Amino acid sequence: MATAPQAEQPRTVQRGRPRDASRDDALRKATLEVMADVGYRALTMDAVAARARAGKATIYRRWESKLELVIDTCQELVSRNIPQPDTGTVADDLREFLSTYATLLTGPIGKAAQALVGELPHEPELAEAFRTGFLSSQRKILRRILEAGTARGEIRADAPHGMVVELAGAALTHRLMLIGEPADPTYIDRLVDEALMPLLR
Amino acid sequence: MATAPQAEQPRTVQRGRPRDASRDDALRKATLEVMADVGYRALTMDAVAARARAGKATIYRRWESKLELVIDTCQELVSRNIPQPDTGTVADDLREFLSTYATLLTGPIGKAAQALVGELPHEPELAEAFRTGFLSSQRKILRRILEAGTARGEIRADAPHGMVVELAGAALTHRLMLIGEPADPTYIDRLVDEALMPLLR
Repeated sequence: MATAPQAEQPRTVQRGRPRDASRDDALRKATLEVMADVGYRALTMDAVAARARAGKATIYRRWESKLELVIDTCQELVSRNIPQPDTGTVADDLREFLSTYATLLTGPIGKAAQALVGELPHEPELAEAFRTGFLSSQRKILRRILEAGTARGEIRADAPHGMVVELAGAALTHRLMLIGEPADPTYIDRLVDEALMPLLR
Repeated sequence: MATAPQAEQPRTVQRGRPRDASRDDALRKATLEVMADVGYRALTMDAVAARARAGKATIYRRWESKLELVIDTCQELVSRNIPQPDTGTVADDLREFLSTYATLLTGPIGKAAQALVGELPHEPELAEAFRTGFLSSQRKILRRILEAGTARGEIRADAPHGMVVELAGAALTHRLMLIGEPADPTYIDRLVDEALMPLLR
């Protein structure tokens, strides 16, 4: 619980008191719940405080604004729940990452993320933070999977890595958010075996 | 103009008066504008009426509810603006379809569609209508492109057609709505040449 500025979360302001990590988590959980219920626009610090049975001042000591609170919540939960896979093969790394990501998007974080998507055109700061936080952490993991596979000689160095990274994330969000069908292991196997691996080999 | 029930739009109710098509279009345009401004949840029939300088009764004579109005607006504009391409090759058909679709999603219809996406988890009827109207018309066109290409012997009959159809739509919506970068001709060429065609040949 360092109070030094964190490079990963430049928007998070640390004020006087030391942070209580479990308190922060309870507030993040409440944030997700409120956002899944009413969306980003209608979310208020008051509603989050009420849901977490905390004082509003407690929230403001930790996050300066609703935007900061929501972005920090999403970033924190994504980085905590999506580890870099290392199975030894690209196909299995992709399967592991996509399964973890699909599980995350199927739960409350996914509902909250979907509520955010609807707001992005109206909220440029939110859009910027969503992109640098949420999307780029996803891309970073995928890129590392492909780099490791290239180094092992398992996939072509001249394969369209950027396009595969984009399609992997696109397929999951489109299926879960727009089509509304599950991204279960059968689907993930199809995605990896019918599309992603053939483009890389 | 016909007042007979239309198989494609089972939710649209035709009441006493004959429809005034240009009046309907003005109301649809106002619907899109209001939705792009405030989202689906905050949209009211009153706001649409005010924007179109129409009476609220005019709207209710044509659409029974906000849900019907929004869905009919999206379906009508999609079906009117996205023709089935027929260039003679799968690659060019895909390029033509994807460009038209990207243009549509980049304008007010896209903003409105994005606002809808954020509401889908909370609005099961809206989600159902969005899926059968908006998404399935997109898939139908893509499937016909692939069927024609298979019949011409241009692409493999055992290629993963379903996956390609899903990825084509996913790539565009993910790029425009989530990443927030343009789906310009350069991007569409990459999508077709680096990903979709290699999976089909």
